[in-house]
Amino acid sequence: MTRHDHAGRRERLRALAAERGLDAVLVTDLVNVRYLTGFTGSNGALLLRTDPTPGAPDLFGTDGRYTTQAGTQVPDLELVVDRATVGALARAAAGVGRLGYESHVVTVDGLRGLEGAVGSTELVSARHAVEQLRAVKDADEVEALRRACTVADQALAELAAEGALRPGRTELAVGRELDARMLALGAEAPSFETIVAAGANSAIPHHRPDATELRGGDFLKLDFGATVEGYHSDMTRTLVLGHPADWQTEVYALVQESQAAGRAALGVGVEVTAVDAAAREVIAAAGHAEHFTHGLGHGVGLQIHEAPGISALGAGTLAAGMAVTVEPGVYLPGHGGVRIEDTLIVTDGEPELLTLTSKELLVL
Amino acid sequence: MTRHDHAGRRERLRALAAERGLDAVLVTDLVNVRYLTGFTGSNGALLLRTDPTPGAPDLFGTDGRYTTQAGTQVPDLELVVDRATVGALARAAAGVGRLGYESHVVTVDGLRGLEGAVGSTELVSARHAVEQLRAVKDADEVEALRRACTVADQALAELAAEGALRPGRTELAVGRELDARMLALGAEAPSFETIVAAGANSAIPHHRPDATELRGGDFLKLDFGATVEGYHSDMTRTLVLGHPADWQTEVYALVQESQAAGRAALGVGVEVTAVDAAAREVIAAAGHAEHFTHGLGHGVGLQIHEAPGISALGAGTLAAGMAVTVEPGVYLPGHGGVRIEDTLIVTDGEPELLTLTSKELLVL
Repeated sequence: MTRHDHAGRRERLRALAAERGLDAVLVTDLVNVRYLTGFTGSNGALLLRTDPTPGAPDLFGTDGRYTTQAGTQVPDLELVVDRATVGALARAAAGVGRLGYESHVVTVDGLRGLEGAVGSTELVSARHAVEQLRAVKDADEVEALRRACTVADQALAELAAEGALRPGRTELAVGRELDARMLALGAEAPSFETIVAAGANSAIPHHRPDATELRGGDFLKLDFGATVEGYHSDMTRTLVLGHPADWQTEVYALVQESQAAGRAALGVGVEVTAVDAAAREVIAAAGHAEHFTHGLGHGVGLQIHEAPGISALGAGTLAAGMAVTVEPGVYLPGHGGVRIEDTLIVTDGEPELLTLTSKELLVL
Repeated sequence: MTRHDHAGRRERLRALAAERGLDAVLVTDLVNVRYLTGFTGSNGALLLRTDPTPGAPDLFGTDGRYTTQAGTQVPDLELVVDRATVGALARAAAGVGRLGYESHVVTVDGLRGLEGAVGSTELVSARHAVEQLRAVKDADEVEALRRACTVADQALAELAAEGALRPGRTELAVGRELDARMLALGAEAPSFETIVAAGANSAIPHHRPDATELRGGDFLKLDFGATVEGYHSDMTRTLVLGHPADWQTEVYALVQESQAAGRAALGVGVEVTAVDAAAREVIAAAGHAEHFTHGLGHGVGLQIHEAPGISALGAGTLAAGMAVTVEPGVYLPGHGGVRIEDTLIVTDGEPELLTLTSKELLVL
């Protein structure tokens, strides 16, 4: 298990908090807490002060179930054990001038609780502060993502080599086998509910695997990923079982070209809308604009969907170290669909491709 | 797949809303949405009106990714497809007098959005309204829980029979095998991150499996469950690898007695605090009060933890049809610990035991 640089991440948040005129930040989103401390339990919170002192240090809070785990995973922060964890940290923050809280995470009822605990301290939204930091991955995170992608690549390669993707099998059986193989290869869990969509089901962007049997001549769309050290890989490949029909070859080539255009557009300083457009224009030029019904991609890391969103409605530009997916699709309702998706790291030069499975139309 | 009675559940919520003087309820918690509609996608919301009319019906909302899935899973509700799903339903509710919203789920930022969308409509907390309904399971839900428990029972029985629980194997390997076996037996997923805790690790209530090897003479604590049709089973068993020492037999017998007392206390109208006390007193009488560091149990269903909580700090009484766990533990830090946990249904008579694996000290 890599020892991530949680202290370094906290210093980046401290600088951001100071920039925003906050005296402290109360981090309660569990994924953000994990990012900043390494804690993986189901209840934890962090009080980070802009100017911590020995008398008023940063605090990590959890409850009695996790005392031992907190000692192991968060040895570098002062520990508060309290069943009402967030309330205890809020009480510890009473007296600071401006306390940032995660208004995109804290519920309406939760804010009432905070207000009761902090006294005269002003509660200020620190919306997406940690998510903004998380969008740019450090070397440890890229390494975890690389391993997560390798697990997914290898699981698919093994299933294909063993003939597990053959007519007569059900979507459910294939999905379970893919999940089990990823676990056997060291994944903690699948990144999300694995999508296996055969034939006409491949036209449903987020089809749930069911008892549909794979048939010769059908598209088979697989969208899946592995979680390693909390980091998620995300990959889609679309195959054909048997000899592809002309329409299948054509749709596939179109999505392949669109996906290559999207990958080629990834670069430092590029607007996310421009990346989406680069891929979307290829599909639109072929008259299939209305068959590409979702955004082009999304950031990926401790969550399967995180900043930056890459879509026509997105905002902002790419930075070196961002981990993103590029996943255009063309879906012909009732007929079949193709999606091709990679996970990549934005760099100063060419993006680094983490999902290495071939994107040539695989005919099984 | 069972066809659950979602319409019946919505009528129960409608009655509850009327009781609370609401004209409509906006349900945005995804689990609550699933309970009331059957929808399993990652974005969905329900606008339920106290007095629906053909011109102002109940509405189910989702986005374009799920149009087809919504048609299949929620055929009986009028569909709104909008990328800004919750905002669209809130706009549709503009004009009603009092609109209930889930203040324990909606974030502070989310409430701002609702306020902007509903105009002069009054937003009123409908905190835990659906959770209150969910606490009492209907027959379809009990059947799904029964099957989820059977998968977990069978997975453990198979691993034990095959000798997979033997010295030299790591916690991680055993956990992955248990997960893979549950998937092979038809689980959609493990109910939560499976706990495998060997030796001294068994004294950590929520130990994360690591590379620790199982050793002869050690306790082996397994806390795991299967998800079937969205319903979670939850079971803990503690075994001994080889010949148990006297202290192990004693601690085990104590927890076994406490767990039996907790199960025996389950009944309609019983205060949850009394159930907790029944089990806790057994452990306290043996001088181990401080080694039982968590609540006795919790409701289980579409979520692994749901109402009712069974602890000294809980509130309320049990009702027929509630699905709960009973899981006392005694943890001797640095030494070892025992937890025994079942999932049960509260009935007018004896509780129905769903996790059928033996609770005799299993010596492998």
